[in-house]
Parts: sequence; C-alpha cells; structure tokens
Amino acid sequence: MKIHFGVDYYPEHWPRERWETDARLMKEMGIQVVRMGEFSWHKFEPEEGKYDFSWLDEAIGVLGRYDIKTIVGTPTAAPPAWLINKHPDILPIDREGRTRGFGGRHHDCQSNLTYRKYISDLVERMTLHYALNPNVIGWQPDNELGNSHDELCTCDSCRRAFQHWLKKKYTSVEKLNEAWGTNFWSQNYNDFNEVFTPRITASGENPSMILDWRRFHSDLILGFIKLQIDIIRKNCPTHFITHNYMGFSDTVNYYKLADLLDFVSHDNYPGGHFAKLPQQDISDVAASLDVVRSYKNQSYWIMEEQSGITGWEVMGRAPKPGQLSAWAVQAIAHGADAVVYFRWRSCSFGTEEYWHGILPHSGNPGRSYNELKELSAKLAPIMDEMQGAVPKAEVGIIYSFDQEYALRSQPQNPRLSYTGQCLKYYKALHDHNVSVDFVDPERDFSQYRVLIAPLQYLMSPELEDKYFEYVKNGGRLVLTMRCGVKNTTNICMTERDLPGRLGELAGIKIYDYDCLNEADVDLKYNDVISKGDMWADIITPDEGTKVLAVYASDFYKDEAAITCRKYEKGACYYVGTEPREKIMEEFIRTVLKEADINKDYECSDNIEMVTKSNENGEWLFVINHSEAEGTYKVPDNFNLMIGNDSGTLAPFEYHIYDTRVKSSNHALAQ
Amino acid sequence: MKIHFGVDYYPEHWPRERWETDARLMKEMGIQVVRMGEFSWHKFEPEEGKYDFSWLDEAIGVLGRYDIKTIVGTPTAAPPAWLINKHPDILPIDREGRTRGFGGRHHDCQSNLTYRKYISDLVERMTLHYALNPNVIGWQPDNELGNSHDELCTCDSCRRAFQHWLKKKYTSVEKLNEAWGTNFWSQNYNDFNEVFTPRITASGENPSMILDWRRFHSDLILGFIKLQIDIIRKNCPTHFITHNYMGFSDTVNYYKLADLLDFVSHDNYPGGHFAKLPQQDISDVAASLDVVRSYKNQSYWIMEEQSGITGWEVMGRAPKPGQLSAWAVQAIAHGADAVVYFRWRSCSFGTEEYWHGILPHSGNPGRSYNELKELSAKLAPIMDEMQGAVPKAEVGIIYSFDQEYALRSQPQNPRLSYTGQCLKYYKALHDHNVSVDFVDPERDFSQYRVLIAPLQYLMSPELEDKYFEYVKNGGRLVLTMRCGVKNTTNICMTERDLPGRLGELAGIKIYDYDCLNEADVDLKYNDVISKGDMWADIITPDEGTKVLAVYASDFYKDEAAITCRKYEKGACYYVGTEPREKIMEEFIRTVLKEADINKDYECSDNIEMVTKSNENGEWLFVINHSEAEGTYKVPDNFNLMIGNDSGTLAPFEYHIYDTRVKSSNHALAQ
Amino acid sequence: MKIHFGVDYYPEHWPRERWETDARLMKEMGIQVVRMGEFSWHKFEPEEGKYDFSWLDEAIGVLGRYDIKTIVGTPTAAPPAWLINKHPDILPIDREGRTRGFGGRHHDCQSNLTYRKYISDLVERMTLHYALNPNVIGWQPDNELGNSHDELCTCDSCRRAFQHWLKKKYTSVEKLNEAWGTNFWSQNYNDFNEVFTPRITASGENPSMILDWRRFHSDLILGFIKLQIDIIRKNCPTHFITHNYMGFSDTVNYYKLADLLDFVSHDNYPGGHFAKLPQQDISDVAASLDVVRSYKNQSYWIMEEQSGITGWEVMGRAPKPGQLSAWAVQAIAHGADAVVYFRWRSCSFGTEEYWHGILPHSGNPGRSYNELKELSAKLAPIMDEMQGAVPKAEVGIIYSFDQEYALRSQPQNPRLSYTGQCLKYYKALHDHNVSVDFVDPERDFSQYRVLIAPLQYLMSPELEDKYFEYVKNGGRLVLTMRCGVKNTTNICMTERDLPGRLGELAGIKIYDYDCLNEADVDLKYNDVISKGDMWADIITPDEGTKVLAVYASDFYKDEAAITCRKYEKGACYYVGTEPREKIMEEFIRTVLKEADINKDYECSDNIEMVTKSNENGEWLFVINHSEAEGTYKVPDNFNLMIGNDSGTLAPFEYHIYDTRVKSSNHALAQ
Repeated sequence: MKIHFGVDYYPEHWPRERWETDARLMKEMGIQVVRMGEFSWHKFEPEEGKYDFSWLDEAIGVLGRYDIKTIVGTPTAAPPAWLINKHPDILPIDREGRTRGFGGRHHDCQSNLTYRKYISDLVERMTLHYALNPNVIGWQPDNELGNSHDELCTCDSCRRAFQHWLKKKYTSVEKLNEAWGTNFWSQNYNDFNEVFTPRITASGENPSMILDWRRFHSDLILGFIKLQIDIIRKNCPTHFITHNYMGFSDTVNYYKLADLLDFVSHDNYPGGHFAKLPQQDISDVAASLDVVRSYKNQSYWIMEEQSGITGWEVMGRAPKPGQLSAWAVQAIAHGADAVVYFRWRSCSFGTEEYWHGILPHSGNPGRSYNELKELSAKLAPIMDEMQGAVPKAEVGIIYSFDQEYALRSQPQNPRLSYTGQCLKYYKALHDHNVSVDFVDPERDFSQYRVLIAPLQYLMSPELEDKYFEYVKNGGRLVLTMRCGVKNTTNICMTERDLPGRLGELAGIKIYDYDCLNEADVDLKYNDVISKGDMWADIITPDEGTKVLAVYASDFYKDEAAITCRKYEKGACYYVGTEPREKIMEEFIRTVLKEADINKDYECSDNIEMVTKSNENGEWLFVINHSEAEGTYKVPDNFNLMIGNDSGTLAPFEYHIYDTRVKSSNHALAQ
Repeated sequence: MKIHFGVDYYPEHWPRERWETDARLMKEMGIQVVRMGEFSWHKFEPEEGKYDFSWLDEAIGVLGRYDIKTIVGTPTAAPPAWLINKHPDILPIDREGRTRGFGGRHHDCQSNLTYRKYISDLVERMTLHYALNPNVIGWQPDNELGNSHDELCTCDSCRRAFQHWLKKKYTSVEKLNEAWGTNFWSQNYNDFNEVFTPRITASGENPSMILDWRRFHSDLILGFIKLQIDIIRKNCPTHFITHNYMGFSDTVNYYKLADLLDFVSHDNYPGGHFAKLPQQDISDVAASLDVVRSYKNQSYWIMEEQSGITGWEVMGRAPKPGQLSAWAVQAIAHGADAVVYFRWRSCSFGTEEYWHGILPHSGNPGRSYNELKELSAKLAPIMDEMQGAVPKAEVGIIYSFDQEYALRSQPQNPRLSYTGQCLKYYKALHDHNVSVDFVDPERDFSQYRVLIAPLQYLMSPELEDKYFEYVKNGGRLVLTMRCGVKNTTNICMTERDLPGRLGELAGIKIYDYDCLNEADVDLKYNDVISKGDMWADIITPDEGTKVLAVYASDFYKDEAAITCRKYEKGACYYVGTEPREKIMEEFIRTVLKEADINKDYECSDNIEMVTKSNENGEWLFVINHSEAEGTYKVPDNFNLMIGNDSGTLAPFEYHIYDTRVKSSNHALAQ
Repeated sequence: MKIHFGVDYYPEHWPRERWETDARLMKEMGIQVVRMGEFSWHKFEPEEGKYDFSWLDEAIGVLGRYDIKTIVGTPTAAPPAWLINKHPDILPIDREGRTRGFGGRHHDCQSNLTYRKYISDLVERMTLHYALNPNVIGWQPDNELGNSHDELCTCDSCRRAFQHWLKKKYTSVEKLNEAWGTNFWSQNYNDFNEVFTPRITASGENPSMILDWRRFHSDLILGFIKLQIDIIRKNCPTHFITHNYMGFSDTVNYYKLADLLDFVSHDNYPGGHFAKLPQQDISDVAASLDVVRSYKNQSYWIMEEQSGITGWEVMGRAPKPGQLSAWAVQAIAHGADAVVYFRWRSCSFGTEEYWHGILPHSGNPGRSYNELKELSAKLAPIMDEMQGAVPKAEVGIIYSFDQEYALRSQPQNPRLSYTGQCLKYYKALHDHNVSVDFVDPERDFSQYRVLIAPLQYLMSPELEDKYFEYVKNGGRLVLTMRCGVKNTTNICMTERDLPGRLGELAGIKIYDYDCLNEADVDLKYNDVISKGDMWADIITPDEGTKVLAVYASDFYKDEAAITCRKYEKGACYYVGTEPREKIMEEFIRTVLKEADINKDYECSDNIEMVTKSNENGEWLFVINHSEAEGTYKVPDNFNLMIGNDSGTLAPFEYHIYDTRVKSSNHALAQ
C-alpha cells in the first residue's frame, strides 16, 4: 500500500511522554507519514557547529513503530538567534531600506554567502545522518519558498547578485541599456556595477528593470534551494524531494522549481483567514489545485491540508461539519495522490498557535479528528488504484509568471489582475464541469482542443509562432485584451499595430482603446446585454472575421468587442474586454460547443463534478461544497464506489464513482 | 475650604503684564489652583547646568496674591534642543527602525541613562527650590506617561534594558525559552543577550515576546517616573504627587503607577477631536471616570478638563451651551474632588494652538468663561462636604492590563477588543444607572455582588482560585468567551478542555467554537431574537447548568450560547458570544435581578443618574447629556440642593440632591 | 508668423532613420516648434566631463529643415547613474529618514553643492554650444520644478541650508524663537545650528516651523533654478526662458518663479489618470489655466498639452473624439499663445510608456494625429492676431502660496482645503461665464470690481491696509471663514477678536465658532435652504451690517452666517461657512449684480463661453465640453470666425467669434 494520508508533526513542541499517544492516535486515523523538522534549526544545531539529531531520531523511531514514515524538512526558513547575532547582515532589507528583524520567520537574505555556508554545513550533516534511516522516505527543503520574501531583500549582497545575473543575461551593458530603455529619464548605465537594487524612489520606476528584478529574485531563490537539493541528491539518492507550493503565489517560478523536484506538493487552505471569508470561491480552490498539478504535469501531494480554523493574530471561520472532508476529497479529485494535514495538534505557542490542528490544544480528539478518521477509512481502499491519476483536460489556460510580474507592476487598470483574469475564465469553465490544465507557454499545446491565453501582454516571436502553429493544426485559441503590447524585456513593441502579428491570426486590428478605470461599458452578445469591465479594445475586424459581441455605449458604441476568426483548421477568438459573468458564460458555452467539448454533467450550482484517470481506470467525484442540499444526474457509464446513487448530496457530502467493474473492495462504500 | 476648581496655566506663553489680569479673572471665576511648568525645560534650564526658576517664582507669587496655589509639573516630556543636539541618542527609534525627531514632544528614549542623568539633576534642583514655597502644594512629574510612547523605543539602550528585565524575571535563559515557546520557528536563545527588541519582521511575531515587551515597557516607564518621584518625596515631603492619566490608555499599568502617587488625576476630553464625533458616548466617558477612580480605589482629580473645542491640525465640534458644565458635573459625580480645566487660554503658537482654553486667543472672556464661572459659583458651596465621596459600587468589572496587551496583539476576531467588550458591559449597566467599579484582578472581590470578568484570556491558578472563592461565598460571576485559553506567559494551556478549571465553576465545556470574522450569528434569549457578534463558543452544558440563550443559526443552531450555573452560595454565568444590545440588556437585567440590585431610578434615555457618598452623606446627580429635554422621577429619599425638582431637565442641565437635612448653605440652590 | 503649435519630442528614443518621417508628419500637421533634451543628461554627458551634443545637433538640424524650431530643456531632473554612484549623497532623504533611490526621476537633493557644481558645468557647456544655433529659440531649465520634491529632502545639507535661510530671515535666534513660539513644548533654540529639518516626530509638530520649512523649500528650488537661468541669460541672451508649471501645484511659489522667466508655461492634462475620472471638472481646468496666466499676468504657453490617454502604472480614460481639440481651444481661450503637445509619440519604454503621444507606439498616425492636425489648420490663420490676448477680468480671487502652506498643515476641518475653497468660488463665477484672475496678494487690486479673498488665515497689517484701501475706493471684497486668525509666522493673533482689524471693514465680530468636522449645518439665504459645510463662524453683526444668510440648525440657529457691509465707496462681504452649491450660486449672483458685472451670455450648462482680447480686438470662444449637444445665444456684437452660428454645438465642438470686421482670412471658417 502506498502513502495517501499524513500529517505535519512537531514532536519538539510536546513532552516526550506524549509522543506515543500521538503515534497511536495517528495510526488509528490512518496516518501513514509525517513531515517533521522544518523550522527547527536550533534543535538541530543549538550552537555553531554542535549538531544534535537525537531528538528527531527518537521521534522517527516512535512513529516508525506505528508504521509511520517520515519526510524530513530542512529548517532553513528560520535561522536561529545565535546565527543572526553573529552575522546580522543575514537580515533582509526591504525596499524602504528597513532591516527586517528577528522574531518571525524568513528573516534572511537568500543571496548572503555566509548564510549559505551555514546552510550547506547543516544540510550536509542532516542528509548524511538520515540517508540510511529506513523510516525516512523523503525531503522537503526549506518551507513555502518565496513566502514573506516578496521583493526582499535589497541589500548590498543582493545588489551584487543582481548585477551578476544581469551581466550573465545581457553580456554587455549596451544590451542592458537597450533592453531596459534606459534612454528614458537618463537611466543609462556605463557598467553593470552601477545598477542598484530597486529601493523606493522619489517618483516612478523603470518597468523593464522591475520585471528583471522579479525574474532575478525567482532565480535567486531557485539557486538558494538548489544548493540544498544538490546535497540531498548526493547523500540521499533513494529519497524523494518535494516542496510545498502555495498555488498561484508567484515569487518563485514554480514551473522551474518543479524541474528540481520529484513531485510537487501544495499547501491547501480553502478557508484561510487571509482569504475572502468565510472561504475562497470553490472554483478558485479548484484552480489552485489544477495549477499545482500543472506545474509538473503530474499528480501531486497536499503537504499541508487545512485541518481546522486557520489564524495568526486573527482567525478565519470554523469549517462546517463535513467541510474538511469535502476539501480533502476535492484535492484528491484534482490529482492529489496523498493528503498531509497541517497540523497534528494546535501549537500552544508562537505565531501560529491559532492555526488549528486535527487535535485541539487540549490534545483530546474531537470533531476534526473523527471526521478525518472516517475519511481515511472510506478512501484508503481505493487510493492505491488511483495513484497517479489526473484529470484529462481538453482545455488549457496559459499561465505565465512573466505576465504576472509585468502586469502586477503596471496593471493598466488598477483593478486589473493577470491571475485574476485567468481565474475568471477558469470559473466559467469550472461551472461547466470542464477539466482544465494551466499551461506553461514553453510547453507543447497540441493536446488541448481549446487554449485560453488571457492578457498576452509580453510577446515573443517564438510564442507567436507557437500560437499560429496551434491554430493551424485545429486548435481554438482565445486571446484577450492587451495582447502583444510588449516584448520580453517589457518594452512596448513599435512599427506594428496591436495586437501585432497575432492580429493576423485573430483577423483584427486595434487602433484605439479605452481604459475603464473606475468605469465599465455596455456589452452586447447576441441578445444578452451585460457589462464589459477593465478595458475596451476597439476592434477593427478584418473582412471575414465574425463579430460575436459589440460595445453598446460610449464613443465606440457598435464597435466590435469579441471576435472569432477561422484560421486553417482552427480558430482564434479575441476578447477586447473583461465580460461580466453572464456574457462570459455565454461566450465560454459558444467556445466549448464549437470545440465539441461537452461533459454533459448535470448538477445544481453547489455541486462540483470532477473526473481523473490513470491506466487503472477513471473516477468521478461529486462533491457538495455548500450548506444546502444538492442534486446531480447519476452518470450512466460509472459505478458507485463511495456514497450512494440517490443523485442527492447532503451538505458537504461527496459521492465517488468509477468506470471499472466493481470489485469486492468497493463494498466498503456506505 | 479645600481645592475644587483649578486651571492649567502657562504664564511663559504670555507677556508678564498680562499675568495680573489672568490671576484676577481666575479668582473671579473661582479658580483655586493652577498647574504650571510641565513642558518648560528650556525655561528652567536654558543651557546645560544653568538653572532659572525666577520666571515661575514670579508667576507663583502673582497667583498666590490671589489665593491661587500651584502644582508644579516637571518638564521631562519635552527635552530641549540643546540636549538633543548634544546627545542625539536620546531620540527614540520606532519598530520600523526610524528615529523619531525633534519638533514635537516625547522625543525621548526612556531607558537612556544620559537622559535620566539630566532629569535627575533638573528635578533635584526644582524640588530643592520649591520645597518651602508656601504657594506650592504638589507635583505632577512628566505628563501623560505613555502618550506617544506606544512601543517606542527599540534602540540599543532599550534592548539592554529589556534583556536585563527578562533576566530578572526568568533568571535562566532556559526558563525564558520555555515561557516564550521559542521551540516554535527556532527562536530559542542561548543567552539573554541574544534577545532583540521587536522590530518589524519579514513575517510574524512571537506573542509571548510581545506581551513581555509591553509589560517591560510599562515597567520601564514606571522606573522612569519613580526616579523623579523619589527625588520629590525626598526633597518635598509635605507636597502631594499626582499624575494625569488618560482613562483606558494602556502603555503604563495604571494600577502600579497609582501605588507611587498620593492620588490619581485624569485628563477628560469627552468631545476630543480624536474620538468619535461629535463626542464620545456618554457611557464611555462615565467608564473612563470610573476606571480612573478604580486605579487607586479612591476619589481623584481631573487634571485636564475640556474647556472648549479640542484640536491639533484639525478640530472637533464646539461644545454646546451647558455641555462643558455637564461634563464637569459628571466628573464630580463619579468621584472627582477637584476639576482643573485645560487650559486657561488658547495658546497662540505650537501644536496645540487649537486646543481651546477657557479664554479664546483674544484673551476676552466669553461663553466658556461665563459658563464655568457660574458652575464654580453653584458647586463650590457643597464641594467641601463631598470631599472624598465616591460611588458605592455593587458591581465590578475586572479590568486587566495584561488581558488588554495580550488581546491587542491577537484579537482573534479583527473587530474584537478587550477594553471594547468591557465598555459594552459597562454601557448595559450604566443604562440601568448602576454604579460600577473596575477591578484589578489582584484585589479583593468580596465587596461586589456581581463581578463581570470579560475575556479572561490569560489565566493563572491563583486567579482561578479567587473566582472559585468569590462564587462559593455568594458572588455572581460573569465569564465570557475566550476564557482560560492561555497561561500568563501567553501560551495556550493544554491537557484541559476550554475554559479550563473554570469550566467546573461555570458548569460547561467548550469543545468547538467559531470565529465570527466578518460575520455574526443569530442568538435567541427567551423570546428575544438578536445577534451574537465576534465569536461563538459552542457550549456543552454540564447537567444542571441552565441554558439562558442558544444560537439560532449556523451549524451550531440550538447549541448553548449563554449559561448559568448555581455554585454553592453564588452563581457563574458564561457568555460565549458578544450579544448585541437588545440581548445584552436582557441578560444584564437578569443578572442584576438575580443579585437583587435595583437602583430603581426612572429617567429618560438621555439622563444620567449617579450617586456618590462619603461619611458626610450621599449625593445624587441627575444630568442631561443631550440637546433634548429629559425627565426623571424625583427621588423620595433625597433633598434638592442645586437646580429644581420639576423632574425635567433642559438640554445639558443638571440637578443635585443629597440625603442630609438641608442646611442654610444649600439655600444657594437656585 | 509666430509660433503657436508645437510638440515635445525625444529623438533619442527612436532610430535615427525615423527622424525624417517624424519631421515630415509634424510639418504636415502644423507643428512649428519642439521641446527636446530635458531628462537626457546621460546623452549629453555620458561620462564625467565628456560632453556630446552631436545627437541633438543632428535632430535640431533635421527638424530645422522642416522649419521647426527647438526649445532646449536642461536635463537636471534626472542625474545619471554614474553621478549617483560617485556621489550617493545627492540622493534625497525623506521625512521618515529613508533615502529615495535611483530608478525614477528627481532623485536629487537640490541643496547639494556637489550636484549643483555638476549642473553648472553641464549647463555652461550646453548654453555655449547652442547660443548661436539659428534653430534654437529658447530654454526650459529642468522640468516641473517641485514635482516629486514635496518636502524632500531632509538631509544634512538641507539642514545647513535651512539654518542659513532662517538666519538670514530672522537675524537673531531670539527672533526665531519668538516667531515660532518655541516656548511651547520647550522647543527654544540657543543657536540656529540647533534647528533640525522636520523628520517624523513621536508626536506633533510646530506649525510655524513647518510653514517656514515650506517657504524655505520654495526658495531653495528657486535658488536651484536661478543657478541655471543665470548661465542661460549670460550665454544665450537672445533666447527666451520659460518653465513648465503645473497649475496649482504649490511646492514652488510660482509668482516668484515667474519673475525669473520670460513667460510662463503650463502642463495641461485635464483627463489625467491622477485626477478625478473620467476627467477634471471643466471649471477646475479653466481655473488652472487662469492661475497660470495670473502668475505672470500675461499670456502663456502650454508646454505639455494632453494628446491621448495619460498613465504610468495605470491609465486614465480615453479622450472622446473632439475632446483633445476642445481642451486645446479652451487653453487658447484662456490666454495661451502656443500649445505644445506632450508628446509626439508614445514612448516604448520607461515609466511613462502609457502617457500616450499624438502617435501611438506603432508610429502610425491615427485619431489623435488627425484631430489635432485639423485643429492646427483651423486655428493657425487667426493665432498671430490673437498673440498676447488674455481675458479681461473684472473679478479677482486672491491666491496665496503662504495660505495654502499654512492651511495644508492645519486644515482645521480635515476636509477643508484652501485651494479647494478658491476653486468653489471660481466655479460659481465660471458658471456665470465671468472671467477671473487669480491675484497675488502683493499685487495691485484696483483693476477688479470684485475681489474674493477666501480663507485669509495668515494676515499682516499691510494686507489689512490694502483691503481697507481697496474697499474705500469702491471695491467689493468677499472675505470668508478663518480670516485674520494668524500672523505671517503662523502664530494666532491675540488681544483682538476675530476676524481682527478686518472686522471693522466687514462690520462684524466673531466670538464663537464651530468646526463642522464630519458634519454640516442648515443654511438659509433668502428663501433658499441648503447646507453650510466645513466651518461655522457665529457672526455678531455690527449695527448697520446686513445679514444675507443665517444658520438654520444647531445651537447657533438664526445667527448670522453671511453678511454685507457698505464701507465708503465699496462693500465687504463675510461668509462664515462654505455654502453648498445652491446658496453659493445665489450669493455670487448677488455680488455680481451689486457690482454691475453681467456678461449676459446665455448657454446650456455644458457650454463654456470665454473672451480674450488684445490691441487687435476681442475673441469669443464657445466650447462644448460634453458628450451632449449644447446651445447658446449667438452674441450680437461678434462675428463668426470658426464654426457656424447655428447656436448649437455638437459634442466637443467649438465656435469662435471676433469683434473685428471680417477680413478675407476668415473665410477659412468652415
């Protein structure tokens, strides 16, 4: 049996005499693995050069006796006080020039060479120590890379690193000047060593510099973690390496990070207090799961799955009865092979003491424990067969870190967000129960019948070629506003009308536009009247281009807003504004219909229906994410595995079907 | 005749030739005392070591000739420019690492030893100089301690002082680590000298550290002021020492400060521009007066009573005719022996030039002067007899600085405030005209028939014992949400269900709860339906515990929300949510009725009825705080002293009654 | 033919081979002048002491061949990276003590002597180089002085400069102490070298210091630019010098700056993304044009006229068809001799790449080009005759930088703004099509039949004399709330009732007032009932003073709010509150009527009618600023020049009339 359920455990927070009880309770609820050790640098190295792994050895041993394996975290997100006192230059400096102090986590400059030396030494020791421990199966270096590090740090060490990165990228300072357009406001450099890190200015910034700064920052962190990964690979060749992602978090390019890992993990907090309350939109949660799966195009783990109320200084809402299970089942439906809960027991001290665990502070099992125990019992029997299964997506949404970086600096409309627009298209697809991949623009597009490419703001000839190729071969491409504005160094392209070469593919030209800053515009799609938001490209369609929607107000009333152009075997749509929900739904319905994609699932609005499949078969998950009863049409070609086939789901209930002949195992279904 | 009316006076702001006029006008309006000198360091010591008290001597002399006594303020809230230029390290450094500059007030690090040396020298000189001046009667060292110093400063000197304080408290670094739970995020210290002051971090803070930082900060300021108090006591043994508090302001533990003083004073600005406009809720003003009285459990002074529009860069509303008097009478009703107005005349320069005095900038007496003159004339005849009189409270509200510190760092619900909840209970009691003490949890509880203990978040075995003892002996205790969560070093208590040992007293257990972040919940109390706010403890009552209110929505519909448990001679209520006004009123009515507390005053909503008493008798104040006419039932057992017994009050009018046989003095009543 | 249309051009941003095309397209659309070179320090001096003017020489030459002249900008708003790296102390330090970094513009301390030396050297070289170039006609030193420099910088160099400025102004430190009222909070200085620059304090500021800091800052910048102007005058005596103002921007005293210039220019962005969207109120735009004209009391240039969408990180709305022309015509109507558009072509890189030019990024002429080309063609024939023409204003609004500085620090009511109130009075006059001058309080008032003097907060005996003199001689003066509160060092005046000596002129006294913080008051003017806002002076009229409006609520119900007093040949109005629009309109109608001012133009609300005149005649501009059709009464004494005399204007259409006999030129009118 493979590993499917786990929990994040901190034995160092609890008395030794409790460990046995914890292990037993874990075992009883179906826990097979724990993650331990991340954040515990001082326990591993209480003084410089004095290492102590005995406490973790003992914890691994206790858990091992209950058949619970261990993933070891390296504690490099929390350098200890002795280290910071000895080398205060490790503390990061923010864009305002303020040193961020000791007392939380991530108080580190990731380019600092002294700091890296200490890390190398520690990880070398840890990996040598655990390489042959039979209960250790894998590693998580550091924790949530990029978290708290957004645009930190701007210190002298980072300045040198940035200069070095630029020199490598541009080779000559003349090329740098050209790439950044430094002729504007006399920002020309005579030497790479004249470049500063971006501190707050008197007024204005160079967008090309800021984009490269973000790219540099991502690469800096990748280099920072590669240092550890190389040591782990060298010393622990049989162990897997993963890392806990945070969905759409963008400080690190997650595609590139995935190349360094055996598989990707995700921290899933749908009800997080930091998000829209009482919980994130369920389509946003689904999108997070799908993007995480897409970063490496394979099944993934949840390394931290919400197990109760989340909170730091303030808390979010209590998950409703059944809701933790519904979220965990959703994670599995979208391609998780394993779900590791965060955390075993609410910590009694420190910043995260209200980030609730499966057990409350009291240590007495309660509602969460019982609910998740039941979930393990129900799902464990089928998890092995589902190993590696993922949704088969016919629709892809292009998702690019570069676009996010560029548009975050210059959102054009203050309310416009690149990821936000991706999520709006995702939601419309999710409402139709259509499986979606997020697609690295550098990967192959051919498997998708529809490709949605929102806000293709930065554009390269290579990507233009790929889009042409894709459509030529029968793909249906959706482009949107602000397409083809800039080259890849964030400079507006000249000597061509918008949207540039892709205008030929879309059969349009854009000579004029309006930024709907604090405004919207009437939009008409067939008989549907709604609003366009954020932006209005005033589209001049070529002859033969079909106009799907027109504006219905302002000086561009009756001008084209959404168009479609047949191009060889495929078609290219262009959407010049952000359609509000009603027209978005209408438009996506058209696109799906024309692409012959129809899952034909019928269900009420509060129900999510997702399939995933592998070589063993296909599974259908039907999940009620609401406090109201929901209904769905029981599918013809699936067999019930878990739940019942009444077509009715109680609040937060889920049913699971598969396409295989029922085996005796499945009699476990309630 | 004792001192009852005074004014804060700044002769150094006005030409010498005006002083005589001021003294005469003061005398004519009944002023008996002035406070002078605080903030005037440069006048006292224009250059290092060159002292000059002649200007103040002269002012004291002029006023003395009009029978006006003087309270001297030490000017240590405003170190002069020569001192800051010579020792710029006196400037405080904030949590962002920014030095706060010269140009306002409180630009000082209170741990700085150089600064303390200059203070010692100056106060030594001042006290020796004024010890025998017959017109000087008392001292106010510094001004509004804690004001502007919230969490300032984080400099190296404060770091050393903090380390020293921690060493004294915890004796060993192991105990510090345990008390702060430094195992979390690897924050363990190997030595006290590794501890930093809390600067902004990259992410997160240690709540135990922050709580100790606030306690340290309070102690630091107490030490800072004790330096001066010791000198005053030594050199001026016949003078009283007081300090001007600011109600619920919490930088300094006001109970501990009170131990150093002869009596407590308060700065009372009900219409302050910094508060809710056009004025604070009158029950909040009343609560401020009551808490100030409670800090030392005796009558107090108003050292700064609003005398006109308040303002710095912006102003508040103009007090209505009669409103200044109504506020002053309210202060007396709640236990003030003397009312000192701030300030005599609006200053013509500096930050506070729009903090209006009794006289306007012109110096010509106007509305405020005439109104307050009339007030003195009316009240002076009865003030001597009322000396020392205070309300006799049968209800206490536990008020703890530690709880405020802890909950301010971690409010749980972003809208939740410890002091805010205390004020909500206070308001419900005030609406019933019930006198209330705020009660230091370290003091004796036995005098109260009802004790309301909101948000007993930090809990010690000793306090648990006191609550048990109190209820055993017949007390009625009201506990609320988040009770017993943490120990006194701000660490969540484990191995026990909420609310811990007090669960036995309350006859309940809490296994589950909901944080009503951006939400509320329906609440049902008898037939009253309203809302619960902030939090929902889902209460499991023991057998025999009475359920007073249940939730009426969400997944805990019909679960207990408010309970009552008889326990030996007393009873313990538990309130798991913040009831909105209607149910709060209903609940308090029940508690008062069951405790047999009934003042039986009848009056319209805009009327406040307060009694205070001493060995000479009891006085009843009836005050209209509104622009509408109000009515009340004339009490049977009181005699009219001031006003009339029509039972009707014009806007901002007040009537005063007493229980004694009318003496000829009282014929003064209009 | 004189110069009337131009464009800001950046040849260094475009390939050399494009320049010829640009010149031809400019010529074809009627462009006669370009501004070039500001911001291009690195192009002029790529390394220290190595100067290169060849690129600009070439551009000047290309344009010259198309009869296009050049205004050269000095690039001192953008010191290059080599300079900042060599002298990092040039970077400015803000009030929080943060160094503002390289990467935008204006990253300079304007008191820094090193920086000034580099500027002198560069400008010396530039001016010697271009003195005899026949195509160069003038200079713009630096760019938008004061922009981004608001209260920057507080470095040691600025501290010394501030101390020096104070010493020069006050001569002795005693006088400084008195002028600033440093007795308050012990801020007395023993020596000028003890004064700090204003950094953030722990609490509060000295308003007198802040006012002088702002005055110092203005003078500092004037000195900074005079350095360059002196060099230009010396080396290029035949060239004009101008500077691009920003309307009401107040960092630099624009009256004083005007004394250094041959004429004033203005940057006019009515639809700027930084302003109220979709565009500024048209009366605010008109006021900006009028104040710019008033700074030097003569016709002016637009140096940057909006030519498309504006934007940095975010953009504003697209100008509607015709709107760019309407704005340009409005600028001419209010007194512009020339309109220079910003910019020729949208820049493809840098902070301002979305500040759209006449040409889009593509370089292909589109809507803006065609519209503005048509505008040049229509107007060019009459521009020569209109040279120097300005509106003849019978109404003046006093506009003072000192008042703005003082009230910005202490707005009294947080919503109160000095310039804001000036704009409210301006709007009421603009609604009546009355031409308005803004008037430096130091200039002669006698030409105005009505003088509106809002918020005369700072007052000197000299200004009081001027107002008395003005009214005595028949002027009608309007004073408003907060008049005569303070002297010119920002200290409240004492020993007199408000509004001081002017109370005699207005026939009133103010003993009491209310700050309408978060409030308003009912106001009654004849039969009109509306609201008074911001403030309520409770006016006690002298006998014989006419009460025009009274308050209709609060404790000062029925007290006077607006009064009028005849005084010798004139009259003085006093307005104690900010009347909301309806009563403001009523009041202004009364004042105009009593002053016999009646332009008698009839038009719908969306139409602006403006006249300007010179020795050649008078012109009437009728402009529709809206998307709706508008109508007006065709004037009797004017001849149609451009447009038609239907009395109807399509959206954004304009008609122009003149008073002269039609010459054949005017047959050009469509």
